[in-house]
Amino acid sequence: MDTKTHFAANLPKPGDSLASLSTPIPVIDEDRLAANIRRVQSYMDEHHLAFRPHIKTHKIPALARQQVEAGARGINCQKISEAEVFAAQGFEDILITYNILGDAKLQRLANLNDRISGIKVVADSIVTVTSLAAYFTGRKPLTVLVECDTGGGRCGVQTPDEAAALARGIAASRSLVFGGLMTYPKPDTEEAVEHFFIATMAYLAIDGIDCRIRSNGGTPSLFRAHLVPSATEHRAGTYIYNDRAMARAGHCTLDDCAMHVLATVVSRPTPDRVILDAGSKALTSDLLGFSDYGHIVEFPDAVITSLSEEHAVVDISGIDGIRPEIGERVRIIPNHTCVISNLFDRMTFHRDGIVTRVEDVAARGLVW
Amino acid sequence: MDTKTHFAANLPKPGDSLASLSTPIPVIDEDRLAANIRRVQSYMDEHHLAFRPHIKTHKIPALARQQVEAGARGINCQKISEAEVFAAQGFEDILITYNILGDAKLQRLANLNDRISGIKVVADSIVTVTSLAAYFTGRKPLTVLVECDTGGGRCGVQTPDEAAALARGIAASRSLVFGGLMTYPKPDTEEAVEHFFIATMAYLAIDGIDCRIRSNGGTPSLFRAHLVPSATEHRAGTYIYNDRAMARAGHCTLDDCAMHVLATVVSRPTPDRVILDAGSKALTSDLLGFSDYGHIVEFPDAVITSLSEEHAVVDISGIDGIRPEIGERVRIIPNHTCVISNLFDRMTFHRDGIVTRVEDVAARGLVW
Repeated sequence: MDTKTHFAANLPKPGDSLASLSTPIPVIDEDRLAANIRRVQSYMDEHHLAFRPHIKTHKIPALARQQVEAGARGINCQKISEAEVFAAQGFEDILITYNILGDAKLQRLANLNDRISGIKVVADSIVTVTSLAAYFTGRKPLTVLVECDTGGGRCGVQTPDEAAALARGIAASRSLVFGGLMTYPKPDTEEAVEHFFIATMAYLAIDGIDCRIRSNGGTPSLFRAHLVPSATEHRAGTYIYNDRAMARAGHCTLDDCAMHVLATVVSRPTPDRVILDAGSKALTSDLLGFSDYGHIVEFPDAVITSLSEEHAVVDISGIDGIRPEIGERVRIIPNHTCVISNLFDRMTFHRDGIVTRVEDVAARGLVW
Repeated sequence: MDTKTHFAANLPKPGDSLASLSTPIPVIDEDRLAANIRRVQSYMDEHHLAFRPHIKTHKIPALARQQVEAGARGINCQKISEAEVFAAQGFEDILITYNILGDAKLQRLANLNDRISGIKVVADSIVTVTSLAAYFTGRKPLTVLVECDTGGGRCGVQTPDEAAALARGIAASRSLVFGGLMTYPKPDTEEAVEHFFIATMAYLAIDGIDCRIRSNGGTPSLFRAHLVPSATEHRAGTYIYNDRAMARAGHCTLDDCAMHVLATVVSRPTPDRVILDAGSKALTSDLLGFSDYGHIVEFPDAVITSLSEEHAVVDISGIDGIRPEIGERVRIIPNHTCVISNLFDRMTFHRDGIVTRVEDVAARGLVW
């Protein structure tokens, strides 16, 4: 028998109390989740911006459905496998914000493009464009956006000049359709994004090439998205769960964080040290600029100083008052929620401490 | 249909060339794996030390079988779910090096203890011991070792005095059997471990209490395990795959690292920057004291300066000579292998670049 099925008896079930669940386990507060979706969608609606949630944060089709029902226009994926899972669940407007290379992935991309109407990818080099153009020759044309580096320092062409040149290459290919521009900017750099989009559009207008989509992105400065009037849409993932990094960025408060990792104090070897059962295999080692590994709701002055795989070492010397005891359960707001989704096969949801549903993290664990 | 089954067509198969696999993907070199197992087992045999591999590194029963066939005496688990998976595969001598608390886990522990002969756990507090003793009353007695903090700064009683006191408590309980001492030490502190074990044994000898097992652990200074003559066994996990941190510690060379994460150059936005498709969801953010996120075999002077979820940003300015090109594939020796096992549902093995087998990472993704 499949081991995963064999041990399914230990899974949380609707109606269970959170207090009965084995730790460590990430749980999602349904009301905070719904409020996060509403709040961001309202902002986008108010500013007439199309909103494209990035599903890498949750990898769960039912959550993308909530996002779309609230008003989102399509979804954003980072990998072929994510797009495959969501396409199989009926999503049609999917932007994969990645340079796709290699025959195995191109074949799967072509299959997706045949099956659904709205597959779009990005490219930031002539190598990627040439390879896409060659692979899609004789097939249904593929829509490709140009990825622009507006200061984020990851992928993307470096200047509007380069963006226009690459766009012309895409537009000139009979097997590709030029879809527009895409960027994943540094937070709080709206002016740079606006300049990049406007300049590229101006260059392309001379050739009569239309940048239909101008896709901006990111959660941290999401509520400044209206400062990029040239953008037609905004992409964001983390906002649905939120996390400690988003609270620090000013996007939300700690009270808006829908994900908590439940953990248990398993040891208190010294008066100033407790050990939790949530280590790097439950929280990840993502620091995102913090010097510690998460915020303990019940003990905000405790500091998770280090993680090993199944242990968190917590310095409690700064706690003024009652200190955590062995056996006590705590809630950790993680530094970064998106990577935690990638660790767990299932995500547990609750309202007021009672489990409402358990969803498969359907798009994790697959071949790219 | 289950999405995982639906997309199984993309999985590697025996006979596939590594060059045909979609990246990012961790792969294990069979010959290096076998050599790592042999080398450590030979050392343990030579020094008449029982060896107990920690399966947290691989979570794969077939690998534990290779370790036991080479001469390992039992296995080490960190969680109930790991022990459940390995017990279901016929392993009997299982030490779970963890304080187990909470009814759900205690119930599962009792089931395991009923089913197999060699379940052992550790405790480092009277709270844990009391809870174990109460739960196992009227059941088959449970073997409990005392976890000792010999300088590692994680769990464990702080002094031989405390260790002896806790051991007496275990020995006095009718539902528990005192099994001995266990420590997870800081590397290169053999003297401290030896002192802790010897002193505790001396205290307990006065009461006629025997410390049957004295379990020492860790890969980094594994080849100094003979410097703790009081130890009866050594536990280690990482040695089977090895990683960049173990090479830095002097346990092995980079050539002994059996795990590589295959990645593809997907972008080269500037002359000095390339982007790989292996991010924190493939490598984890574990730094373990390094300032970068892995060693690129083909470009040892390249530096993985940051990771986002599906991207590695690589500074190639230090490369003297030919630089990586878009589409080129590279092998990354990760900082830490154990956490990578926790990200992937399956592990792919190869010999000379041809896939030999694909194993389920059977003990990942389960409820604690």
